[in-house]
Amino acid sequence: MNVLLDDILKECSQYVGQGKLANYIPELANADPNKFGICVIPHEGEIAFAGDYYHHFTIQSAIKPLILLMALFDSGWSRVHDLVGVEATGKPFDAFNYSDQALTGAHINPMINTGAIALCTLIKGETYDEKFNHLLNFTRKLAGNPTMEIDEAVYRSEKITGNKNRALAYMLKAYGMIEDPVEDVLDCYFKACSILTTCTDLARIAAVFSNQGKDVLTGKQMFEPKYAKYVNAILTTCGMYDGSGEFALRVGFPAKSGVGGGILGVVPKRMGIGVYSPALDKKGNSVAGIHALEMLSRKFDLSIFL
Amino acid sequence: MNVLLDDILKECSQYVGQGKLANYIPELANADPNKFGICVIPHEGEIAFAGDYYHHFTIQSAIKPLILLMALFDSGWSRVHDLVGVEATGKPFDAFNYSDQALTGAHINPMINTGAIALCTLIKGETYDEKFNHLLNFTRKLAGNPTMEIDEAVYRSEKITGNKNRALAYMLKAYGMIEDPVEDVLDCYFKACSILTTCTDLARIAAVFSNQGKDVLTGKQMFEPKYAKYVNAILTTCGMYDGSGEFALRVGFPAKSGVGGGILGVVPKRMGIGVYSPALDKKGNSVAGIHALEMLSRKFDLSIFL
Amino acid sequence: MNVLLDDILKECSQYVGQGKLANYIPELANADPNKFGICVIPHEGEIAFAGDYYHHFTIQSAIKPLILLMALFDSGWSRVHDLVGVEATGKPFDAFNYSDQALTGAHINPMINTGAIALCTLIKGETYDEKFNHLLNFTRKLAGNPTMEIDEAVYRSEKITGNKNRALAYMLKAYGMIEDPVEDVLDCYFKACSILTTCTDLARIAAVFSNQGKDVLTGKQMFEPKYAKYVNAILTTCGMYDGSGEFALRVGFPAKSGVGGGILGVVPKRMGIGVYSPALDKKGNSVAGIHALEMLSRKFDLSIFL
Amino acid sequence: MNVLLDDILKECSQYVGQGKLANYIPELANADPNKFGICVIPHEGEIAFAGDYYHHFTIQSAIKPLILLMALFDSGWSRVHDLVGVEATGKPFDAFNYSDQALTGAHINPMINTGAIALCTLIKGETYDEKFNHLLNFTRKLAGNPTMEIDEAVYRSEKITGNKNRALAYMLKAYGMIEDPVEDVLDCYFKACSILTTCTDLARIAAVFSNQGKDVLTGKQMFEPKYAKYVNAILTTCGMYDGSGEFALRVGFPAKSGVGGGILGVVPKRMGIGVYSPALDKKGNSVAGIHALEMLSRKFDLSIFL
Repeated sequence: MNVLLDDILKECSQYVGQGKLANYIPELANADPNKFGICVIPHEGEIAFAGDYYHHFTIQSAIKPLILLMALFDSGWSRVHDLVGVEATGKPFDAFNYSDQALTGAHINPMINTGAIALCTLIKGETYDEKFNHLLNFTRKLAGNPTMEIDEAVYRSEKITGNKNRALAYMLKAYGMIEDPVEDVLDCYFKACSILTTCTDLARIAAVFSNQGKDVLTGKQMFEPKYAKYVNAILTTCGMYDGSGEFALRVGFPAKSGVGGGILGVVPKRMGIGVYSPALDKKGNSVAGIHALEMLSRKFDLSIFL
Repeated sequence: MNVLLDDILKECSQYVGQGKLANYIPELANADPNKFGICVIPHEGEIAFAGDYYHHFTIQSAIKPLILLMALFDSGWSRVHDLVGVEATGKPFDAFNYSDQALTGAHINPMINTGAIALCTLIKGETYDEKFNHLLNFTRKLAGNPTMEIDEAVYRSEKITGNKNRALAYMLKAYGMIEDPVEDVLDCYFKACSILTTCTDLARIAAVFSNQGKDVLTGKQMFEPKYAKYVNAILTTCGMYDGSGEFALRVGFPAKSGVGGGILGVVPKRMGIGVYSPALDKKGNSVAGIHALEMLSRKFDLSIFL
Repeated sequence: MNVLLDDILKECSQYVGQGKLANYIPELANADPNKFGICVIPHEGEIAFAGDYYHHFTIQSAIKPLILLMALFDSGWSRVHDLVGVEATGKPFDAFNYSDQALTGAHINPMINTGAIALCTLIKGETYDEKFNHLLNFTRKLAGNPTMEIDEAVYRSEKITGNKNRALAYMLKAYGMIEDPVEDVLDCYFKACSILTTCTDLARIAAVFSNQGKDVLTGKQMFEPKYAKYVNAILTTCGMYDGSGEFALRVGFPAKSGVGGGILGVVPKRMGIGVYSPALDKKGNSVAGIHALEMLSRKFDLSIFL
Repeated sequence: MNVLLDDILKECSQYVGQGKLANYIPELANADPNKFGICVIPHEGEIAFAGDYYHHFTIQSAIKPLILLMALFDSGWSRVHDLVGVEATGKPFDAFNYSDQALTGAHINPMINTGAIALCTLIKGETYDEKFNHLLNFTRKLAGNPTMEIDEAVYRSEKITGNKNRALAYMLKAYGMIEDPVEDVLDCYFKACSILTTCTDLARIAAVFSNQGKDVLTGKQMFEPKYAKYVNAILTTCGMYDGSGEFALRVGFPAKSGVGGGILGVVPKRMGIGVYSPALDKKGNSVAGIHALEMLSRKFDLSIFL
């Protein structure tokens, strides 16, 4: 398997560096565009990896499935469903257009910024520090990595420059969709996006989602199967922003990308995958990462649509 | 299995008649809202059915996966992909809003009216009569039902009153996305929507999509597996209009609804399903039909997301 | 005055040919971009002209105030108001975006294509030929030019290629805003746009609107003052498409442009103006024409806002 | 004239209390819906007034023409023009929809919240306190009323609850359209909206705009005529939000409404008008106020379109 992953990285190496680094904060623009790594954790067989699988990068939007999971876990489906919708918006992840009418949950979903910010309010915790720590701890547990931490520089940079997210959050506030102070909610969201991770972490987390909520390595049930089903469904329809349809065709399983360059890929009943390469296409997804997942999907018939 | 389907219809009978009949043409408004039928064709085991599984209704948008299949089959992926996109639009099936810019393929997909009308041009045939007959014959073959015909009254009614579709088609024409005469293209589309079908037909067609393009009953390969993968992926992200996300959560497999009240459900590697009940929710999907599929999905763990 | 107009054309000659000829039909693309003419009919003093004031071009959207006038005249304010709104749309003249909701009169206005097409139905006449002739005759009367005729080649070309207008008209039909056959209504609209005119005609027509409905040369009351007020108000807010705000600042009086290159300018209590130069800015307005009007406005303090 | 104004108020008294009080802050919802006052300052003749012309209310959006004037005055047309457009948006005053693209000045105008907030940055002053004081002092001068002050309760309430404006401001920040701290800019804007005024103040200010920048009572030139022309033009196309077209038809002169219930009306070469009644139509304009202006316009032929 390791050999096969090496082959895939080699064959996809032509795509490495294609696209653009995220540049809204200097920390992301300084990433090395030539990094490329992958890790696969199958339900049966050995964990496999290749390339820069150990390289650290910020998780960014790939934390969104975990925010959704925490909100479901801590507040229940019905409160989640009251707050955010589940339909694809047909718009970029940070779009402002919410039709002519008052903003309602039906206009957003958990995989776009507005929805993820809203869901931070449903994580358990007296304060937003507590909520974030609760999220971080659970993420560490799923990744089996108690050393996960935030990248302080990225966090501070996001906090200072994150005015589009700030605008989205104040809009949620204006329409009564968040009650707590906007800066508190945003602080939790910015920290969540700044968590440092690796392909290995993402693969281990993805493996739990692929295995009905059970840790593949320990066999421990981490959360109820129904939450895995819920999250995987939304990842399929909305996980790759307005590139989700194309991704479903070419790759064919639930996944979530982040502008840090990582993608978390969930193959139900089969495996969890983490892939990383920081140069992004216009929709904000890792170019080389998608190619690697596509090749992997073809070699192992991973599409859930066949 | 028949007993179980009976049970499901019984348990879902409370939803029968909830919602509204499609009323843009008199023929649809005259349907009996109390009809409710289902047919399941599993890869292993006997065909099963219950309720009004033999009742005829017009296929309407449930023909869209077949139009897409024909276009792929006759003109190839690349021409299909040049003409229509694959992203969910976040809009109702007949929406006019295409942002401020010139209309391009990226703004539409094969499961909304605009996209399906455009794809009629890629079906093989010298004339649009030939194209339609080609589509009808292939549909008959997939359904294993050589007697399928159009409902003349519905067809004529659609043709006379279908001005929204006419507007969408002229827009495609205005932006150079269709070259042939608009009325010819529309005639093919209106006929396609007017094909009479039953739950049994839909289940048999769906079964082929669920079985990598192979007829479940005869074992004959009807089309290449890659086309099944392509169509099933788009059905998952866009098949239930702007209710596709909700359907993915609640039911969890590729499906396509029609305003005639039918839903074609594809469970990869497992079964094809046809369900019918003509009262629709606000998004144009059969209310009782979705409930029956949800119950079936739960009883047999049919979600592809777990 | 003639000398002054000569000066204005000379000073604005640098703008002649700037912009692009309308090119959606070959007849418009073949116009001579160097043509530049103007005619002014003041309430006091002699008619004045300069440059290619006698050159013929198609009136195009500059017929819209006359369609509105006829609809008001023949069907009354209340029916006009029920059918079309009066607010600027913030969109190009041929935009498809009507928000997410059902199209209503509130989404359109008489100075965009959709509104003008709808208003053709309110002109008096048993048939659309009669309606058009009624409009043409009234236009001739206002222009004091019984020889006005349509350009057959332009009319036929518009009819053949006018699919965007056809799409808009079918949308009106789909939403119940026009009852008559779409092609009949469009035929009247296409003919109306194809009327051949000159700067002199436009100036004479504009003069009536500037003079409370009274012909400046004969003193004859052509229509009630209230209609002039109504039309002039809409010209001010919507007459130059989504360039109406800029035009109000720079020029400051009611006007209507056409993609043929003509602009009809109404200076209440002062004068009527016709100007022509066929190269257009991105919003569809004559570049040199606007500059000439701006200079004229400054020299004679024509802004109604001061 | 006073008698005539009394008559107008009497005839329009049926409209007093129609519509709804602004209710986004308690201070506005507590207004007395039965208040109704008017003041007229003609270029020739005596100042006239009737009803509750002396009643104090917050100026709200009627400060927007003054913010624009200050920005023009202090930073010049070209910087104003680079920052904000001048076209009607076809949207409510606080709409979020800025098409799918990056926000640019072309999407906003000085009479909607986003535009007015942006223009606060172009007022002279080292700090936003200085900018506000500069604006307040100029407003006092134009109104001839050195006692004008802000309503502290309204200001604090706006500051606390003004999250929609906060969202709009952060969006401006995100797109690089404002550089200074958002809360500073907003503080200036919230204070500006909270200035207490009366019909008399508004009439006196409006009179200056109607008189080419010259104070009607003292004859003193307060600002250059070109600025009056600029502001009056924008008031005509955008001053009454997405009710500007209707207002142009019914009333026919530049005006600006505020959700406090005041309207400032400018009749070039004739008079300045202030009217007040706090119950608003759906677009945010005073119902009785518009009726009074319409009647006044008819009695004195005030429309600039005839």
